[in-house]
Amino acid sequence: MDQNKMKSKKILGKQSILFDNPPIILSAAAIAGKKEGEGPLGSFFDQIEEDPMFGGKTWEEAESLMMGRAAELAIKKANLKKEDIRFLIGGDLLGQLIATSFGIMELEIPMFGVYGACSTMGESMALGAILVDGGYAEKTLALTSSHFAGAEKQFRFPLGYGNQRPLAASWTVTGSGAVVIGANKNQLDKGKEEDKAIYVKGITVGKIVDYGIKDSMNMGACMAPAAYSTISQNLKDLGVDANYYDKIITGDLGYVGKEILIDLLKQDGYDINSNHMDCGIAIYDSETQDTHAGGSGCGCSAITLTGFILDKMRRKEWKRVLFVPTGALLSTVSYNEGNTVPGIAHGVMLEVN
Amino acid sequence: MDQNKMKSKKILGKQSILFDNPPIILSAAAIAGKKEGEGPLGSFFDQIEEDPMFGGKTWEEAESLMMGRAAELAIKKANLKKEDIRFLIGGDLLGQLIATSFGIMELEIPMFGVYGACSTMGESMALGAILVDGGYAEKTLALTSSHFAGAEKQFRFPLGYGNQRPLAASWTVTGSGAVVIGANKNQLDKGKEEDKAIYVKGITVGKIVDYGIKDSMNMGACMAPAAYSTISQNLKDLGVDANYYDKIITGDLGYVGKEILIDLLKQDGYDINSNHMDCGIAIYDSETQDTHAGGSGCGCSAITLTGFILDKMRRKEWKRVLFVPTGALLSTVSYNEGNTVPGIAHGVMLEVN
Repeated sequence: MDQNKMKSKKILGKQSILFDNPPIILSAAAIAGKKEGEGPLGSFFDQIEEDPMFGGKTWEEAESLMMGRAAELAIKKANLKKEDIRFLIGGDLLGQLIATSFGIMELEIPMFGVYGACSTMGESMALGAILVDGGYAEKTLALTSSHFAGAEKQFRFPLGYGNQRPLAASWTVTGSGAVVIGANKNQLDKGKEEDKAIYVKGITVGKIVDYGIKDSMNMGACMAPAAYSTISQNLKDLGVDANYYDKIITGDLGYVGKEILIDLLKQDGYDINSNHMDCGIAIYDSETQDTHAGGSGCGCSAITLTGFILDKMRRKEWKRVLFVPTGALLSTVSYNEGNTVPGIAHGVMLEVN
Repeated sequence: MDQNKMKSKKILGKQSILFDNPPIILSAAAIAGKKEGEGPLGSFFDQIEEDPMFGGKTWEEAESLMMGRAAELAIKKANLKKEDIRFLIGGDLLGQLIATSFGIMELEIPMFGVYGACSTMGESMALGAILVDGGYAEKTLALTSSHFAGAEKQFRFPLGYGNQRPLAASWTVTGSGAVVIGANKNQLDKGKEEDKAIYVKGITVGKIVDYGIKDSMNMGACMAPAAYSTISQNLKDLGVDANYYDKIITGDLGYVGKEILIDLLKQDGYDINSNHMDCGIAIYDSETQDTHAGGSGCGCSAITLTGFILDKMRRKEWKRVLFVPTGALLSTVSYNEGNTVPGIAHGVMLEVN
């Protein structure tokens, strides 16, 4: 790593940051919908809600209630009160982030609203870790959510319309993931062993990548170039090979995007065939759950992280993970006006000792 | 200021941050529409575009082109190239931030997408300053935009419908403002005198405030409680009176919101009657421009800052300013479902020596 060339040792290569005082994930919460609970990762989620409305009256309210639950559970699991969280960083897929605004309002935590489409968990964790590492906060809360029905209503067709879905289409995950990020191990719940602390070692901030694809029903293909860009840059910035990580985990490329990603990285000499995982592929059983290309949505990578990935790391089955949520930057207006669907992906480097 | 009680001297009171190495605004750009150019601040803007389409084919493309222009001009005015900017922080009012995504994509700068409704300039500057102060970047670009026609289409009625506007309604500013934030005075353009450097001394991160108002045509009333919350907390966190600042400048409360804000602050013993300014009131001549409650939109506070306010500070007419863009957190879905319109406001403390 040639970080010594840079003025600050935090600044690494072109797009990466290595933290001086790597923050710790103090707690994590994963709230999932029924379908996600029935999938291969079902047993890893904290709560599986059978009611798609989460007790609310609209799909949007359902998502807000789900996100509020994830936030409160993460705070509770860290043995904290909402007053202990200095800043909240969060966002969602709905126009003007209404799931987030109405979901976390009652917590009364000063907040940064963020939008990175389905890469939002990466963006919120990146900023949450920066705020802690830099001494701007002792504890932050990073979170996001998505809801199948709210996303279909927002981006595609009303559920009652019963439209056919092309095989390249993904299924929006109903789920909300939240993590509390803190400054040091002393903040860890006493019940947890210190040597199981999961550190946020660094981040690679994504840039928008547009290969000119216009098919909003094939978001894996739209996002794969962004995932490629961020992963390749992370490896270059660190001066390491792909096997530096036990797992390189993308957000929601699905079956179509995964192949494109692996091919693109091969052009740069990186082979991630053996250590790549995609949350969109992992979260559903495509054979039995009729989810076509895989799962998607901010919640897809968020609950796969907070439920499954962090558990693997706590057990030290994976000690070094590059978590790369991927987002497709479209709106109904942009694609109906004939625009392309650019992508963005943010990398978060997670490590256990 | 009782900051010594806190573990880090950066952490101040409940919601504020004071920077160890206050970043500098290296340059600023203000691109305005025709109506804004005809208003009282017209002579302060860098460019006034007569074509509401900005050479584009849709309102959304127009906004993207405007934002791209603001970004490029700010970079150019700082005598920099786009490669010199490590991170871009930006957002806009359109669903899924499409004005920003398509506006700044070609710059290929790693980006954090943010959403704080019309408070976005405060949020993006806050994060841009944190990234510089903390040593995560030498230079960042913070920007936002709004476009009258795009916002009307998004939030209200198609322009061709010719609806009547209630007197409490505001007029969305067509404008984009961008600032380059840097680490030290040596980065300032040689042509500028060093003692005119404008510092970002600190920030106060807003929380969502909801007084239960449901009238999306009276956003001043919706946002005033959030502005009150942030300003009052800033003064408490710093342990100063309102006259500590030469100006306390809100984003787009307009005539209705301004009165509410002043009344609310009086309850806490703060009198800002003599040093308060609202960008929404300043930007249009309400007598002749038929803009009712005043200007609004992310671009309102952004171009008032980058055109007018920073000019006043460079001339040292104002040496200490609390800049508080204000946002109304609504979408067409949320208010059509009968939800309230909560607000958020972020405070940015600007100073010249």
